[in-house]
Amino acid sequence: MNFTGSHILSIGQFEREDIARIFAVADQMSPYAHRERVTKVLDGAILGSMFFEPSTRTRVSFGGAFNLLGGEVRETIGFASSAIVKGESLYDTARVLSGYSDVIAMRHPAEGSVDEFADASRVPVINGGDGTNEHPSQALLDLYTIKKELKDIGRVDIDGLRIALIGDLKYGRTVHSLCKLLLLYKNITVTLISPEELRMPGEIVEEMRSAGLTVIESALMEESISSVDIAYSTRIQEERFANKEEANLYRGRYRLNQAIYTRFCDPNTVIMHPLPRDSREGAKELDDDLNNNPNLAIFRQTDNGILVRMALFALVLDVVDQIDTHSRAVNWYTGSRF
Amino acid sequence: MNFTGSHILSIGQFEREDIARIFAVADQMSPYAHRERVTKVLDGAILGSMFFEPSTRTRVSFGGAFNLLGGEVRETIGFASSAIVKGESLYDTARVLSGYSDVIAMRHPAEGSVDEFADASRVPVINGGDGTNEHPSQALLDLYTIKKELKDIGRVDIDGLRIALIGDLKYGRTVHSLCKLLLLYKNITVTLISPEELRMPGEIVEEMRSAGLTVIESALMEESISSVDIAYSTRIQEERFANKEEANLYRGRYRLNQAIYTRFCDPNTVIMHPLPRDSREGAKELDDDLNNNPNLAIFRQTDNGILVRMALFALVLDVVDQIDTHSRAVNWYTGSRF
Amino acid sequence: MNFTGSHILSIGQFEREDIARIFAVADQMSPYAHRERVTKVLDGAILGSMFFEPSTRTRVSFGGAFNLLGGEVRETIGFASSAIVKGESLYDTARVLSGYSDVIAMRHPAEGSVDEFADASRVPVINGGDGTNEHPSQALLDLYTIKKELKDIGRVDIDGLRIALIGDLKYGRTVHSLCKLLLLYKNITVTLISPEELRMPGEIVEEMRSAGLTVIESALMEESISSVDIAYSTRIQEERFANKEEANLYRGRYRLNQAIYTRFCDPNTVIMHPLPRDSREGAKELDDDLNNNPNLAIFRQTDNGILVRMALFALVLDVVDQIDTHSRAVNWYTGSRF
Repeated sequence: MNFTGSHILSIGQFEREDIARIFAVADQMSPYAHRERVTKVLDGAILGSMFFEPSTRTRVSFGGAFNLLGGEVRETIGFASSAIVKGESLYDTARVLSGYSDVIAMRHPAEGSVDEFADASRVPVINGGDGTNEHPSQALLDLYTIKKELKDIGRVDIDGLRIALIGDLKYGRTVHSLCKLLLLYKNITVTLISPEELRMPGEIVEEMRSAGLTVIESALMEESISSVDIAYSTRIQEERFANKEEANLYRGRYRLNQAIYTRFCDPNTVIMHPLPRDSREGAKELDDDLNNNPNLAIFRQTDNGILVRMALFALVLDVVDQIDTHSRAVNWYTGSRF
Repeated sequence: MNFTGSHILSIGQFEREDIARIFAVADQMSPYAHRERVTKVLDGAILGSMFFEPSTRTRVSFGGAFNLLGGEVRETIGFASSAIVKGESLYDTARVLSGYSDVIAMRHPAEGSVDEFADASRVPVINGGDGTNEHPSQALLDLYTIKKELKDIGRVDIDGLRIALIGDLKYGRTVHSLCKLLLLYKNITVTLISPEELRMPGEIVEEMRSAGLTVIESALMEESISSVDIAYSTRIQEERFANKEEANLYRGRYRLNQAIYTRFCDPNTVIMHPLPRDSREGAKELDDDLNNNPNLAIFRQTDNGILVRMALFALVLDVVDQIDTHSRAVNWYTGSRF
Repeated sequence: MNFTGSHILSIGQFEREDIARIFAVADQMSPYAHRERVTKVLDGAILGSMFFEPSTRTRVSFGGAFNLLGGEVRETIGFASSAIVKGESLYDTARVLSGYSDVIAMRHPAEGSVDEFADASRVPVINGGDGTNEHPSQALLDLYTIKKELKDIGRVDIDGLRIALIGDLKYGRTVHSLCKLLLLYKNITVTLISPEELRMPGEIVEEMRSAGLTVIESALMEESISSVDIAYSTRIQEERFANKEEANLYRGRYRLNQAIYTRFCDPNTVIMHPLPRDSREGAKELDDDLNNNPNLAIFRQTDNGILVRMALFALVLDVVDQIDTHSRAVNWYTGSRF
């Protein structure tokens, strides 16, 4: 695809070469995200950050990524301060707000709303999550993390990946998107570990099998994580259930901790999670005792989110080739945080 | 008036030559607002954006305008995060907060509050709306749009304008302010179209007539929009009525759509609206089927708001002559959005 | 202490020489805070501003201070938009969010929470208030103001200070912190004026006496403010009481106004207050009629907050020596606001 001026709405819009392009640009962002160098390539540009549904990490990650490219951020959070309650159409909102910025990152609780907004927008729109539908930058940062973690253990590419997805596979938007992304790769084995009631939707399983992926379904975790590269744990999406009691039937069903990891997993098995992880008693899908396990990649995932979002902005605004020319060394204390 | 260091609180403070000055500076902002060039003339300056009453478009427009001049924005939204609930006077709030920025844009639900705040402020304050009282930048962007739209059809100045104001003329703050601005011009004809109960306040009508404007009042739309340059539609200000049922008596009373426009209006009649327009069934004061009408200027209005607010900041902070010297070409994708 | 990369969590971490260092750097910030010069020393750096408890003045002061050094600010306000409600631990929140910025300023309603967050953070954290526990930048700006005000009347240093603390000394976090800071100085006399029920906690009084400070306790104001350098008034911390009725027993107990000041105080006695002051009838611990008294230093306090917070950022990020080299003269109208 031609990224320049395009909306980023769905992982379905990407070919394998597009993913490769995004990841190559993300790699290029490393010295800026890791605070070795500063670039001002988007000095003077404005990101409209429209989070009609609250979110801290995605919102701050998009905003921080834009700042790291030298741009400014104007934020709108929630519906209270919106003209929508006065009967304004999403078309009008998009026409107006897209006149105030160079690119928009948007989250909205209603499925399809970001597409509708993008149709009317006069600037590129990046989907930051529309209900249970899509959240493409999250899927991209997950796959980017997988690629980097595999590379750290000597694997050249995503082809051949063996991954276990664990937990609430019914409501987890991120695992749905990740599965769809994996359709682009070869020789993939996906092990789906969930309670019977929270299985991956059948159409996604079918889609994977039709594309040639090996899909294994299981209700048991320990036996199923012994030969995977990645163990990807998820939180029970409490807010999607009828009530908390129903969610509690599943919370804590699968708990990965250091003892289980040591006993069942191959060495170097990478542990991932889309975060937030639920650390309350009764949940703990990833135990705190894994925090010092070097293969716990969950915070590298969120760090990689910055790289991927910087890449999307740079591609959509067509400044990839100018990033380094507008750069200089960092002049303040940065420690060794990464 | 001398703009440097002045508060912008009311359209009553402007002479005709002041308006001309603001509009000339707004014209100068065009390459920056339209993303052909970047200026950093206010690099290092801080706008204190204080919206004690929620607003998305006005808030983001002020903030974006300041960013487009190279400055930073620090925002405060709503009362929850305010010391006012602990008994702080507006005087104290103004003394403190004006120490944190170079200029303040402020909205407040209470009439007169922005004036009171400005009295105590140590930096210039721009009124972003104080209750039903004043919203000078909105009136300015409306008149600026009228001037530009007239120019596009070969008219040299605002003198001679024929404008119809349609809808809720009792509670609509923007039409009140616009009428007051029109007092400065010659040979103006204003047609006021509203339900009997929502007529323009008598003192404003009197003021216009005393100043020599021709004022026509009517309860019927179709017959009254046949010979105007501008048809300015407004929303029923639902939130000012005792209850929704009362507002519903008037919602949908005047609906302008493409069929009516074609049948009744002169060609090139410009359609304006202060936005948001109410697009719900039962309202639709401006129908969606006008969206492709090239004379629908409603999104040009909000775009012009950026130009006018940039002009106000540049005038108040006395940087008009420096804007171009701190500028360079834009280096990212901008499309052709305007 | 070595400031570079350090957390600023508690005034207990400072030696006398550390305070002197902070104040020297704060002095150096004066031309930038007072809008004579612009520095871009932190151009490209990002402050993560995390106010899990609302606050306008502290939040805007931290953000403005960072902007004045040339950096960007990404804000999070309140809990609604936080993953914490989904069971995320403070450890996880800190690991994630500290990947998005170069330094964090944080307020949290729970005592000790900022320390816990800082333990997991990968970047320096500055405590902006954790419940009733600590608020070190407020105590620093108070002491910095005392030093400057004393200097204006010819006093060389803080040693020898005579200060009266008036009002709610039980719940007032700022007076607790100020007392602890004063432990570092010599020949200090502290007069504690409060209702019997709102006396300064016994352990703080003991600590001061053990350190050699002279401490006088009194329930009467007029007689006790006759021979002090500083009269430091405080608000009844209504929100810490069981109910408003109980708070009302004490509100308005001590009221300093111009008549009392003229009759009882030495000339040049400086009036301070941590703000907000309660200006409602029934409270008025500092009357409005003091507003033109040149010794009313309450707005100089908040102005000094900018200088002190700029100093903390510059020290923690190790850019003190570079501030002036990245600077230039201000090019916009600044008036004479200070």
